[in-house]
Amino acid sequence: MSSDGSIRIWPVAGLPEIEVGADLAGMIHAQAVAAQTPLADGDIVVVTSKIVSKAEGAIIELADVTPSTFAEEWSQQWEKDPRVVEIVLRESRRIVRQLGPVLITETHHGFVCANSGVDQSSSGAHGRIVVLPKDPDASARRIRARFRELGVNVAVLVSDTFGRPWREGQTDICVGLAGMHSMRSYIGEVDPHGHEFKVQELCVVDEVTAAAELVKGNTSRIPVAVVSGIEFEFDDDATMAPVLRDISRDLFR
Amino acid sequence: MSSDGSIRIWPVAGLPEIEVGADLAGMIHAQAVAAQTPLADGDIVVVTSKIVSKAEGAIIELADVTPSTFAEEWSQQWEKDPRVVEIVLRESRRIVRQLGPVLITETHHGFVCANSGVDQSSSGAHGRIVVLPKDPDASARRIRARFRELGVNVAVLVSDTFGRPWREGQTDICVGLAGMHSMRSYIGEVDPHGHEFKVQELCVVDEVTAAAELVKGNTSRIPVAVVSGIEFEFDDDATMAPVLRDISRDLFR
Repeated sequence: MSSDGSIRIWPVAGLPEIEVGADLAGMIHAQAVAAQTPLADGDIVVVTSKIVSKAEGAIIELADVTPSTFAEEWSQQWEKDPRVVEIVLRESRRIVRQLGPVLITETHHGFVCANSGVDQSSSGAHGRIVVLPKDPDASARRIRARFRELGVNVAVLVSDTFGRPWREGQTDICVGLAGMHSMRSYIGEVDPHGHEFKVQELCVVDEVTAAAELVKGNTSRIPVAVVSGIEFEFDDDATMAPVLRDISRDLFR
Repeated sequence: MSSDGSIRIWPVAGLPEIEVGADLAGMIHAQAVAAQTPLADGDIVVVTSKIVSKAEGAIIELADVTPSTFAEEWSQQWEKDPRVVEIVLRESRRIVRQLGPVLITETHHGFVCANSGVDQSSSGAHGRIVVLPKDPDASARRIRARFRELGVNVAVLVSDTFGRPWREGQTDICVGLAGMHSMRSYIGEVDPHGHEFKVQELCVVDEVTAAAELVKGNTSRIPVAVVSGIEFEFDDDATMAPVLRDISRDLFR
């Protein structure tokens, strides 16, 4: 953390449309240098999952999809594209809620979200659908490794925009990470007045991705932001696993 | 937003222990000046609900609480203080889940959270329990009005630390606001490539409170942070109402 405890968040603008095979870290690094805000050791780079998916080719051609009978019937009832519904089902390992036109699923990664995180904005527009990266932690690790090749030691978070129960509106949450732990724990610590903390563990990576959205979230939809000034210890063994609540501990699945 | 689109977040350190009747805005204003980081028009001040509750006297003496039979029996089963459980029940209008020692309730305000947001860290420590402010929007409005008297036009958010389904770890979310809207809407807008946005509404106030936690969340538990550089239009009619999902639209209540 900086001497006054402040953090700074800024967008990395000017990235081109991302194609399969794109060197995301290289492009981000170059744009940050061009904008005279080069990355520094200890920064956290937050990358929207959509461009990670595009770079990795996590894209499905609608023409290649044959919907199941289940997908066909449900789609007809709610005027959805049955091929898109089929992709949503394939990307899931469990349907958590299916009510009216809403489909809340658990993805193969273990994320619970609407439509398995399948990008509905591009539905049919180009006959292809962007899905979540197959292994977002691995994606983040590859991007982080490439940044290290380029000379900067940064943590990398992959973000996506999810809804949540009980509250309207969406927020950006973390779906993949590299180089930093997901949680900051206060278990057993006491506050300055001698009380033990009510808060036991904060999901710092979800807070960082939410913060990053604040500079990405404008009509130009900048897909990358950098957060500077957060104190963390680098750890290359960190994964999203501690964030994914086991179903045995879950009251809403 | 600043010219480079960046935002800055910093903690307001040095506040004393808050007593009933404390002038929070006055104290925050004075500390910010003392730290040579005075507040500026357009800043967002994020205040932890706990100090708002303390200033407003949203505190219950355990000695004054007579637990119901229901609270007595359930507390005994899970080794809880029946008076604290009674307070949790009184602060709720609905029990959303009750399983083992976990009690997820809907508060009178409409927030769904563990233990009605009752501060468990102070349980019994001083024979008193801090509960959520009675009307956190009104609290925020009062604090904002006082800042205006002091010469700065800022939005005010009241934050609390909540868990969530499906994901471990807690994050700071917004429970009260004044001067800015909760949501940023992209409905009907298209991205630079002509696709309509998947994301329709982002709950910007929850993202700001999450961001603020990143500078508050250390062992000194600084209860106030300031966020600079976010573009928003002031609106004195804004409330938390758009964030509270109606039960008719909710799949998990």
